[in-house]
Amino acid sequence: MKLASLKGGRDGQLVVVDRALTRCVPVPQIAPTMQSALDRWSVTEPLLRHVAGVLESGDHSEARAFDARECAAPLPRAYHWADGSAYVNHIELVRKARGAEMPASFWSDPLIYQGGSDDLLGACDDACFVSEEDGIDLEAEVGVITDDVPMGISPEEVAPHIVLLVLINDWTLRNLVPGELAKGFGFYQSKPATGFSPVAITPDELGGAWRDGKVHLPLASFINDRPLGRPNAGVDMTFDFHRIVAHATRTRRLGAGTIVGSGTVSNVDRSAGSACLAERRTLEVIEYGTQRTPFLSFGDRVRIEMRDAAGTSLFGEINQQVVSFHSHPLPAQDSHG
Amino acid sequence: MKLASLKGGRDGQLVVVDRALTRCVPVPQIAPTMQSALDRWSVTEPLLRHVAGVLESGDHSEARAFDARECAAPLPRAYHWADGSAYVNHIELVRKARGAEMPASFWSDPLIYQGGSDDLLGACDDACFVSEEDGIDLEAEVGVITDDVPMGISPEEVAPHIVLLVLINDWTLRNLVPGELAKGFGFYQSKPATGFSPVAITPDELGGAWRDGKVHLPLASFINDRPLGRPNAGVDMTFDFHRIVAHATRTRRLGAGTIVGSGTVSNVDRSAGSACLAERRTLEVIEYGTQRTPFLSFGDRVRIEMRDAAGTSLFGEINQQVVSFHSHPLPAQDSHG
Repeated sequence: MKLASLKGGRDGQLVVVDRALTRCVPVPQIAPTMQSALDRWSVTEPLLRHVAGVLESGDHSEARAFDARECAAPLPRAYHWADGSAYVNHIELVRKARGAEMPASFWSDPLIYQGGSDDLLGACDDACFVSEEDGIDLEAEVGVITDDVPMGISPEEVAPHIVLLVLINDWTLRNLVPGELAKGFGFYQSKPATGFSPVAITPDELGGAWRDGKVHLPLASFINDRPLGRPNAGVDMTFDFHRIVAHATRTRRLGAGTIVGSGTVSNVDRSAGSACLAERRTLEVIEYGTQRTPFLSFGDRVRIEMRDAAGTSLFGEINQQVVSFHSHPLPAQDSHG
Repeated sequence: MKLASLKGGRDGQLVVVDRALTRCVPVPQIAPTMQSALDRWSVTEPLLRHVAGVLESGDHSEARAFDARECAAPLPRAYHWADGSAYVNHIELVRKARGAEMPASFWSDPLIYQGGSDDLLGACDDACFVSEEDGIDLEAEVGVITDDVPMGISPEEVAPHIVLLVLINDWTLRNLVPGELAKGFGFYQSKPATGFSPVAITPDELGGAWRDGKVHLPLASFINDRPLGRPNAGVDMTFDFHRIVAHATRTRRLGAGTIVGSGTVSNVDRSAGSACLAERRTLEVIEYGTQRTPFLSFGDRVRIEMRDAAGTSLFGEINQQVVSFHSHPLPAQDSHG
């Protein structure tokens, strides 16, 4: 089953989307918003799946064309957005570029930071930044959305709590990272509003590509239509989603609609390319002795997509343009939509 | 005006509370929940103030007794909870106890971390922890709740965006802090669910005690009814709320209902006592060469309160018992209330 939130109001309008991402149908009689569906998931899931079945058969009388440009983030605002850093290879490389040591414990103890969740961006929303001097970078990731998760569960107990998956562009202001890391309080100014794929999908949509708490498919990123990389999200994932979510519950419950990210996907095999510019620049330093690729500029466009073995887009495409805050003042959030 | 959320459902039921904290009235015709009131604050505030006026006059026909034990957190779940660390004196002391250096920039560049906001505790809710070995500690703080705040505003522009104030107990697992600080990704496991005062109040309720973005009143904490301290929240606050909120908007908008905390209140004058045990233990090391006060144990009770010059409780009292997760298993969040 595939779900999306069309723009409109602070929380969007929940729609069921067909597998081909061409048609959709609002379901206000089941749940007006994604959050309200997740709040009562055991009740709403079978009802939504029924609608999805009718839509897929081509028989739904209220179906309309689906357009990713009309999508808000699946959860336009969420109560919890925690990003892991599961591809330890990525951290080791990026730290190396900064001349910073990586503690050995990073290979055994999952890293996680809490992201801003009150302002999540739709797949085609402009990504608005104050200054190019901050070092604007993408981070292509996979994420899961949970139902209510109890405190203190083990990795083996996590699977049934993962109810949806999404793609994420965890926009990062690279030049603000070292200062915030040094303070130790986590990323705040360096992690502005995050972008999301048009649709969220249930794990069964991935078939055999969803196993062991990992998505075993390449995640493709493009800058101005030039490929940046297509590392496989199932390869070199040191901590699978079961371990990251269990880590998150060590001292707390997780509320329905919690989004947990994988961190930047990164493969040891360099031929896969990268999912962020920081890693690419690091590899350039290792190979050429100097960084060749700049961070992003206003006007650049970033696309992120995941296709199945048959070439079908699973989540739709994140397709965001980098714009200047000064020429594109952001509207207040209550005018969303 | 004073507002609270009675337990019931995931988001509680909004009520207007009288100044004496003895009576309240639900206002579903204005807004069913605190979040929905904040989402349309320019519309709902005058309507809520009208109800508050009628309630205060004693004439409201639907008024009922107010009981803080029936309160959820003012926002039982929020989209954004960012905690500053405005009393730099506190950080310097606590770091000293760990033998860690504090960078000089901490006096000029605000610290802020993003807290878990999907599970906020009511004033009299049990505070449930896995293990006493984690070093259970309170942190008594003042917090503000904002409406929609634009990106990139200056401290001078913040005041009208602060619409409510609350008291906060930012529960901290002290023995998990050093490991998380070393990772640099911020506090996650070391900052479990946070407790809140029964009521949130508009700034005008503080009269002249709310000025310069600070609350100029003592914040009293008690452990098992023994005073821990009553430092003045308006004294030694290196970064006032205007500066903390402006810092938070450097690269992002803040959504309506964003909670921004002051960090543990701390005065240089030692006779005021402390607002957390970590600081008290640090002072004991300085004075006696050894820590004398243990962290909290299961069964301990923590109270936090702020009274005005006339001795009237402004926010009601945070009054939480520390309990063991193993003997008090937490219910799923969808059974809230």
